[in-house]
Amino acid sequence: MANPTAAMLVIGDEILSGRTRDSNMHHLARKLSEAGIDLREVRFVPDEAEAIIAALNALRHAYDHVFTSGGIGPTHDDITADAVAAAFGVPIDVREDARAILAEHYARNGIEMNAARLRMARIPEGATLIENPVSAAPGFSLGNVHVMAGVPAVFEAMVASLLPRLTGGAPLTSASVDIPRPEGDIAGPLAALAAEFPQLSIGSYPYIREGRFGANVVIRGSDAEAVEAARARLIEMFPGEAR
Amino acid sequence: MANPTAAMLVIGDEILSGRTRDSNMHHLARKLSEAGIDLREVRFVPDEAEAIIAALNALRHAYDHVFTSGGIGPTHDDITADAVAAAFGVPIDVREDARAILAEHYARNGIEMNAARLRMARIPEGATLIENPVSAAPGFSLGNVHVMAGVPAVFEAMVASLLPRLTGGAPLTSASVDIPRPEGDIAGPLAALAAEFPQLSIGSYPYIREGRFGANVVIRGSDAEAVEAARARLIEMFPGEAR
Repeated sequence: MANPTAAMLVIGDEILSGRTRDSNMHHLARKLSEAGIDLREVRFVPDEAEAIIAALNALRHAYDHVFTSGGIGPTHDDITADAVAAAFGVPIDVREDARAILAEHYARNGIEMNAARLRMARIPEGATLIENPVSAAPGFSLGNVHVMAGVPAVFEAMVASLLPRLTGGAPLTSASVDIPRPEGDIAGPLAALAAEFPQLSIGSYPYIREGRFGANVVIRGSDAEAVEAARARLIEMFPGEAR
Repeated sequence: MANPTAAMLVIGDEILSGRTRDSNMHHLARKLSEAGIDLREVRFVPDEAEAIIAALNALRHAYDHVFTSGGIGPTHDDITADAVAAAFGVPIDVREDARAILAEHYARNGIEMNAARLRMARIPEGATLIENPVSAAPGFSLGNVHVMAGVPAVFEAMVASLLPRLTGGAPLTSASVDIPRPEGDIAGPLAALAAEFPQLSIGSYPYIREGRFGANVVIRGSDAEAVEAARARLIEMFPGEAR
């Protein structure tokens, strides 16, 4: 059975303008890989309803899951929840269970509940909340779209809350081989290896380290024995160098 | 007048699988911001022709510029140039000027030109080359799509080569000088050169080849005569070595 597919939508002007460097994509990519869900596409869009809605509708129809990051805080430019409701054509309002979670958190921490904070309890109709153990304000899943915060500590906590609920496919095994040679030397042997193991995915990731060219070759597949056989075969091809 | 708009397309399984953390998006976002070009969308797709072509065609019609990163190396999974040609419906083949750049670079560095490396001279018809002072193999611009390497040092050098052409300012001229000396020997003379030609931008891209340190120095400016004078001056500083 093929693994479930996924896309990610990262929302925020601050990343596109270069002010902030995103870290959530890399975190999610690693976690999905471990969970056997194939991340197939990532899009970054600004804090604009039209752009968010268009991307959501393209991605939610093309993949099994869509994970979003950003735009669910208390300020006026946090419009992700409204955009998700609009994309699905459902109403959105303050929801009692979300409001209660916030009220309890603020009361416990001596923080005032105000109109801005109450916006974070606006949840589209039909959604399931995603727990936020860091700062309480919940994310939510609506259909196959999972809406999470942009702040990395909160995003990561929400991913940890959410992932066990989603079905993973057969776990992938991977093996990595470091070959300290320029890719031009590696390409021929790698093509032969790919032909020998058609059931595996073999990728070459070049690097320059201290001025020297090399490549990490990554072999992936659901058949752990084939992955190991391909790894051994590749090391044989560059004796004393590959490892 | 509104700023020109741009999108970026990052190509590579290794980023979506979480194996590699992309840094090119953040670099480009900062550089475009400085140049007054609005980065409006970024997409990450795998090394698959269909996904690359679909994303390219969506983005190149929606924005003034599209910048791509990744998939132009010598290995079997480097399919970006072919995908760009397919998206534009133009032929692609080894181009003589690109082949000559590679042949000269490999001859100078004692590297064998083989079939895998020759793939990097495949350029879609009608494209303009983007200079690569780090490892020679060029990028290219076809229409409003600018195709660059994924290795960060090479991507960054290509962005530096390309951006002055796009900003509507005076076009920049560049000259490259190869100095087979460690950067520690070069730094003093280079600082003197920068002081002598304050209107030029002078960058040093270090390398190690067969255990020897060297650097490609790239001189850029809008005054072509000054660039040529600085180039001649730099070669004088390392007689019999710089070229």
